Amino acid sequence: MATDESVPCPPPEEVTLDIEQRSVDALRILAVDAVQRAESGHAGMPMGMADLAAVLWSEVILLDPDDPSWPDRDRFVLSNGHGSMLLYSLLHLSGFGLEMEELENFRQFGSRTAGHPEYEPNIGIEMTTGPLGQGFAAAVGMAIAEAHLNAELGPELVDHRTYAFVSDGDLMEGVASEAASLAGHLNLSKLTYIYDDNQITIDGPTDLTFSEDVAARFGAYGWHTVDVDGHDRPAIREAIASANESNRPSLVIARTHIGYGSPSKQDTAAAHSNPLGVDEVKLVREAYGWDLPPFVIPEDVYGWFESGMERGRSAHRAWEARRVAAFAADAELEKRWAAFYEPANLIIDVPVFEGSVATRSVSGAVIQDIAAALPGLVGGSGDLTPSNNTLIEGSQNFSAEHPEGRNLRFGVREHAMGAVVNGINLHGGLRAYGGTFLIFSDYMRGAVRLSALMGAPSIWIWTHDSVFLGEDGPTHQPIEHLASLRAMPNLWVMRPADATEVTVAWETAINRTDGPTAIVLTRQSLPSPTTPPERADVRRGAYIRHDGTDLVIVATGSEVPLAERAAEVLQANGISARIVSMPSWEAFAAQDDAYRAVVLPPSLPVVTLEAGTTFGWGAVSGLGGLRIGIDHFGASAPYAVIAAEWGFTPEAVAQRIEDWLSQSSALSPQSSDTFDR
Amino acid sequence: MATDESVPCPPPEEVTLDIEQRSVDALRILAVDAVQRAESGHAGMPMGMADLAAVLWSEVILLDPDDPSWPDRDRFVLSNGHGSMLLYSLLHLSGFGLEMEELENFRQFGSRTAGHPEYEPNIGIEMTTGPLGQGFAAAVGMAIAEAHLNAELGPELVDHRTYAFVSDGDLMEGVASEAASLAGHLNLSKLTYIYDDNQITIDGPTDLTFSEDVAARFGAYGWHTVDVDGHDRPAIREAIASANESNRPSLVIARTHIGYGSPSKQDTAAAHSNPLGVDEVKLVREAYGWDLPPFVIPEDVYGWFESGMERGRSAHRAWEARRVAAFAADAELEKRWAAFYEPANLIIDVPVFEGSVATRSVSGAVIQDIAAALPGLVGGSGDLTPSNNTLIEGSQNFSAEHPEGRNLRFGVREHAMGAVVNGINLHGGLRAYGGTFLIFSDYMRGAVRLSALMGAPSIWIWTHDSVFLGEDGPTHQPIEHLASLRAMPNLWVMRPADATEVTVAWETAINRTDGPTAIVLTRQSLPSPTTPPERADVRRGAYIRHDGTDLVIVATGSEVPLAERAAEVLQANGISARIVSMPSWEAFAAQDDAYRAVVLPPSLPVVTLEAGTTFGWGAVSGLGGLRIGIDHFGASAPYAVIAAEWGFTPEAVAQRIEDWLSQSSALSPQSSDTFDR
Repeated sequence: MATDESVPCPPPEEVTLDIEQRSVDALRILAVDAVQRAESGHAGMPMGMADLAAVLWSEVILLDPDDPSWPDRDRFVLSNGHGSMLLYSLLHLSGFGLEMEELENFRQFGSRTAGHPEYEPNIGIEMTTGPLGQGFAAAVGMAIAEAHLNAELGPELVDHRTYAFVSDGDLMEGVASEAASLAGHLNLSKLTYIYDDNQITIDGPTDLTFSEDVAARFGAYGWHTVDVDGHDRPAIREAIASANESNRPSLVIARTHIGYGSPSKQDTAAAHSNPLGVDEVKLVREAYGWDLPPFVIPEDVYGWFESGMERGRSAHRAWEARRVAAFAADAELEKRWAAFYEPANLIIDVPVFEGSVATRSVSGAVIQDIAAALPGLVGGSGDLTPSNNTLIEGSQNFSAEHPEGRNLRFGVREHAMGAVVNGINLHGGLRAYGGTFLIFSDYMRGAVRLSALMGAPSIWIWTHDSVFLGEDGPTHQPIEHLASLRAMPNLWVMRPADATEVTVAWETAINRTDGPTAIVLTRQSLPSPTTPPERADVRRGAYIRHDGTDLVIVATGSEVPLAERAAEVLQANGISARIVSMPSWEAFAAQDDAYRAVVLPPSLPVVTLEAGTTFGWGAVSGLGGLRIGIDHFGASAPYAVIAAEWGFTPEAVAQRIEDWLSQSSALSPQSSDTFDR
Repeated sequence: MATDESVPCPPPEEVTLDIEQRSVDALRILAVDAVQRAESGHAGMPMGMADLAAVLWSEVILLDPDDPSWPDRDRFVLSNGHGSMLLYSLLHLSGFGLEMEELENFRQFGSRTAGHPEYEPNIGIEMTTGPLGQGFAAAVGMAIAEAHLNAELGPELVDHRTYAFVSDGDLMEGVASEAASLAGHLNLSKLTYIYDDNQITIDGPTDLTFSEDVAARFGAYGWHTVDVDGHDRPAIREAIASANESNRPSLVIARTHIGYGSPSKQDTAAAHSNPLGVDEVKLVREAYGWDLPPFVIPEDVYGWFESGMERGRSAHRAWEARRVAAFAADAELEKRWAAFYEPANLIIDVPVFEGSVATRSVSGAVIQDIAAALPGLVGGSGDLTPSNNTLIEGSQNFSAEHPEGRNLRFGVREHAMGAVVNGINLHGGLRAYGGTFLIFSDYMRGAVRLSALMGAPSIWIWTHDSVFLGEDGPTHQPIEHLASLRAMPNLWVMRPADATEVTVAWETAINRTDGPTAIVLTRQSLPSPTTPPERADVRRGAYIRHDGTDLVIVATGSEVPLAERAAEVLQANGISARIVSMPSWEAFAAQDDAYRAVVLPPSLPVVTLEAGTTFGWGAVSGLGGLRIGIDHFGASAPYAVIAAEWGFTPEAVAQRIEDWLSQSSALSPQSSDTFDR
């Protein structure tokens, strides 16, 4: 290329570079100042990843700050959520409506700038992150959702990428390993992760604990990997382009310097999770040549970030135009879109079974009905499909070859399953469920909690819900699980007792929009009730199943028919027991006091009956009540033997109640405060 | 080699092969028959891994059936515990004292042959397995224990290998990925895992979900890998030899056929977790040429397995001789051995702090004292060493270069940490602890539960135990965790309030031999009591800290000093509150009724105060009691702000109690059943 060397003007790149460099430094200095002001937080990561963020956001990612949650936007997940100030700065500078005042109130009560990002899609926070590995794994779910919707609705309406920033901590977490293996297996080609290889952890250099060959490991999973200097922006451009051109999920391994530009703390653990300190902040300002006071950003920097959003705004407009044209051309497509994207308020028929049936089997039948009514229903199991009854009949397994498949095969990867289900539900357009044995809810608890914290409407199908799964024994028999899940805020736990209750549990789960629902199901068959309960009663969380005048037996799931049969034994001995089925503590707690006092009147003594720990049931029974449960680990035996050994037969339950009633304390009045969890 | 072809005798190998083959088939047929008889279980894996097991047990592993738990034995972990019948058959045939009657009672109530193996070292079951990945990861802990004790006590006394059988399910689990990365980093060269690459899972072919390059992945972690045909016994011999010669952890990737020899079910998911069926069992017998009835094994097969144990018996005798000679030569060595291997009954001084101190800091000081008294104490944190205060000062980080190091650097691998700590404690000779934030107990719950189920005396150090960790926000603030852990059988949860209580918590943990202990600690400083409590009181789990006549406030941890200050406010208003500190529900539940009635007399109304969910506290407060807690997720803010916002100040607590006392129900008598969890 010919140049005219006699002209003394600076080359235009220099001006560009200057504002680009100052914009990158703005990301850094905002993090430095916010962390310093809060006197807590993590500035080192934003300082180290600012170059990567600037390139990705200004040149690649397609977002629209005017409509942060438009369905076909690219997704961006900050899996290393401790670097939250990087995200807040990007959102603020790019015009997402996160005001400077919020950045100044970083980590303060009531701010939108919590220590770790909290799900707020209308300002561009795609999910809550912080517990390491969750963002990594949930973003795999987002890419699955994109691939499926792309197949279902066509690339004109759905065609976007999923990006995540991930750290060494993310890569060390098992949930990320599971998700990486799954993403490679599914060949999610629109997934681009940027790994902040800064070689520093809280404890010190990563080589204290982490010396694996990351590129080889991800290559073994089937990922494309590319190495890059994380501070060389032209090279970053190329690396991201290479990742996005690959037909595999991609990991950009970016060698960065934590606390970049901090004269004393760059490349040290001290830069990881502590404020730099007032003196060091001054030195950082000098190093960057940044002479503005905290939280003052020049207009041209705002302009630079805003202009980086033009591609996204334009893409959004083009998408909107395509959508209008497509809907005009095909009214069925518009209906189909709505079926995915508009909230369903489903009423599902109660499946009819003759004789005994396991609640997991009922659930399997209900899934077919929901799948027929709701095209966005997808889900699967952690390699227990035939046991969990989670298969959507007549649909493929989701795969690279069959992205239209609605059956997700998670493999023996419960934790990733939880996070992936969260990611699918956060993505929008789909409702995803994940199933395993109730015992293995332990393995996925990190993801379950995050669904509750975010209010993600994930659906957890947990079967084999008590010692009555039988021969598999104590390793597989839940004891404390119902209690430990009921203790979690915003998770609804449904333990249905029959086909009607299973149906209501599923309706609750599907129609819930502000949090997750667990549906807890039996392995063993239960007798079907002669008179099915009213759905309206079931929805109240607890209801009188069979009335009686001497005491109340409160039971859940498989113990409801047991309680009913025990009541028959008691009746024969002149004792009249009311049976209350309580499929959901949460739904019952949401009823008014009057209803609760009708179901559990203070005048009646209370027995609780559940094949699990009695922990927690004191809030129902009162101190004087009788709690029948299992407060020890299980046993390997056929379930009828376990029931006989541990007093879960009608006769044994009745006997225990009679013995208790014969004690003076049992019939003393309860407090009027009948259900105060 | 010259041979004389004129001699017609069969070559001796043929006879050998015949009995070897029949012995291998005996392993298979016992599994087939036991599963068929139980009508549940997994025969496919034992059929597929029998050749591998036979070679390992008859030619390589050093075990002594006469003393299954001698300290320097090799360790064998069946991580794919669903194939339990393989282990039971090996133990039975090799003379470990597991009788045939037990095999006939496979999966029956009260048998020693549960569906999944249960820890019983005196018959050779090194750990409980079944939840996939746990055995894989715990065996890494066993190898760490070996390496450390080898360095501490010398190779004459400690020099053994750790073997595990692992499945595709194990390899898919995140906990195994974490442990594999750690094992590679630590270069645990005495670890040999045999991977049952049978290409079948419960859902179908593994390629439904699992297509990674396992050899490349483990190579990336730093492992040696070797491929082998899992039914070619000479090749298996060579592969195990190659693994054992390697100076890295090794994975033998054995291509096997699940349900080997079953004419209709070999290589199918049907062979995974179902009995073969009576007809197929007949066909299997024909295929093996096995004409004996179920549970009848020829004497020569017993003889073959018994003779395989001769190497181990001989090694044990040689070890015993070395030990006697070494102790005779060096009395200090004998003492040193005893210091590791004999149970400590430690009494630890209470560290003295002026003014306020965080209980995590007290714990850090107590660890130094225990480390000085107990050379077998080792432990560490999941990359939160400076936050968890888990460092043993003056000791190295454990590594290949410094196997004598007592500080374990687990990286951001909480679940593997849990399993590794279990493995170290199961190994014997050491007492291991693992630390992280309380919130991340969720990530390690699978391992924590297994410690409780096995009765392994693992010690869990969980700091940052409430919303009062402050700015890190809801992702890091436990709410339901104390309840969810108290609900777990056999886990003791200690939440101490001051230096004395921390010391007693550590004493409890260290002196406990039949299960795990969680020590739950504050991030924030707490005022030190003017009069420290008596240790004997603290040991009872709950005790009167400050007496009063109008009501009882029961508090734990950081809420104990809060309760004390609230009581001062109440006192000024003429209300006399008894303060009960309850550092351990489990210890209190173990007291007699009389003591419990003294602490919580039925005549006094009860307020419970804990900065976490109120779930569970109904068993202490009764229905009429006041439970002050936090039944929603946390917030990102300085801790004093959170305390003020949510009523955790002395004034707010006092006011809430006064308001409640003014209600008529509060002062009604409680039931006499004062603590019935």
